Amino acid sequence: MIGRLNHVAIAVPDLEAASAKYRDTLGANVGAPQDEPDHGVTVVFIELPNTKIELLYPLGEDSPINGFLEKNPAGGIHHMCFEVEDILEARDKLKADGARVLGSGEPKIGAHGKPVLFLHPKDFNGCLIELEQV
Amino acid sequence: MIGRLNHVAIAVPDLEAASAKYRDTLGANVGAPQDEPDHGVTVVFIELPNTKIELLYPLGEDSPINGFLEKNPAGGIHHMCFEVEDILEARDKLKADGARVLGSGEPKIGAHGKPVLFLHPKDFNGCLIELEQV
Repeated sequence: MIGRLNHVAIAVPDLEAASAKYRDTLGANVGAPQDEPDHGVTVVFIELPNTKIELLYPLGEDSPINGFLEKNPAGGIHHMCFEVEDILEARDKLKADGARVLGSGEPKIGAHGKPVLFLHPKDFNGCLIELEQV
Repeated sequence: MIGRLNHVAIAVPDLEAASAKYRDTLGANVGAPQDEPDHGVTVVFIELPNTKIELLYPLGEDSPINGFLEKNPAGGIHHMCFEVEDILEARDKLKADGARVLGSGEPKIGAHGKPVLFLHPKDFNGCLIELEQV
């Protein structure tokens, strides 16, 4: 079912410093910050040859990553995103297998403009998993 | 400097259950467990079209992931590994930029039989980074 690893998302407490680290110290191809008000984050995309890293920084008081940064003040890996061909089929299979889909269970439009769902970390070895239909 | 994301490593408290989850629920291509006594882990490789997930389970009392699993009993993302062309050149550049290389600073032979180094999570937004020369 799952296809490519679309991205690994890292929550960071200082977006400029984290961008500089990946650009200048690790020599990666780092984009400009993009506000995603619908998702409560500012995102910086780092293009690797085979996948992406996404740096996430809170945007607004209700940002979904505020809690994560409170628990992990230095930052940390927040989630990983796998691509699927049909997100509703994937959801139904997951639910039939007893995996919990976060929120209403209906896909939302994610930061890339495509339907996404998140799976409960307790069902996947403590890892928050995003599924994105491509 | 950094190239492909070689793998994301996930420490898990139950290797069989985690393998089954990725194979049966997420429908991924999951390999057989491989003991890596030199690294204190049993590893399961999950092949995605563009990269790998590695499930890590402690092997022996001195396993380097025992501490991680004590802090994160459900498991979690342990590190991510970026490929580099020349690990000594990468190390020298990182050190010159003030990043800390773990251990002696000399590359060791990693689980794939290639030279690897680990970078201090405090220098990279709370993320443990492995560099592997390919």
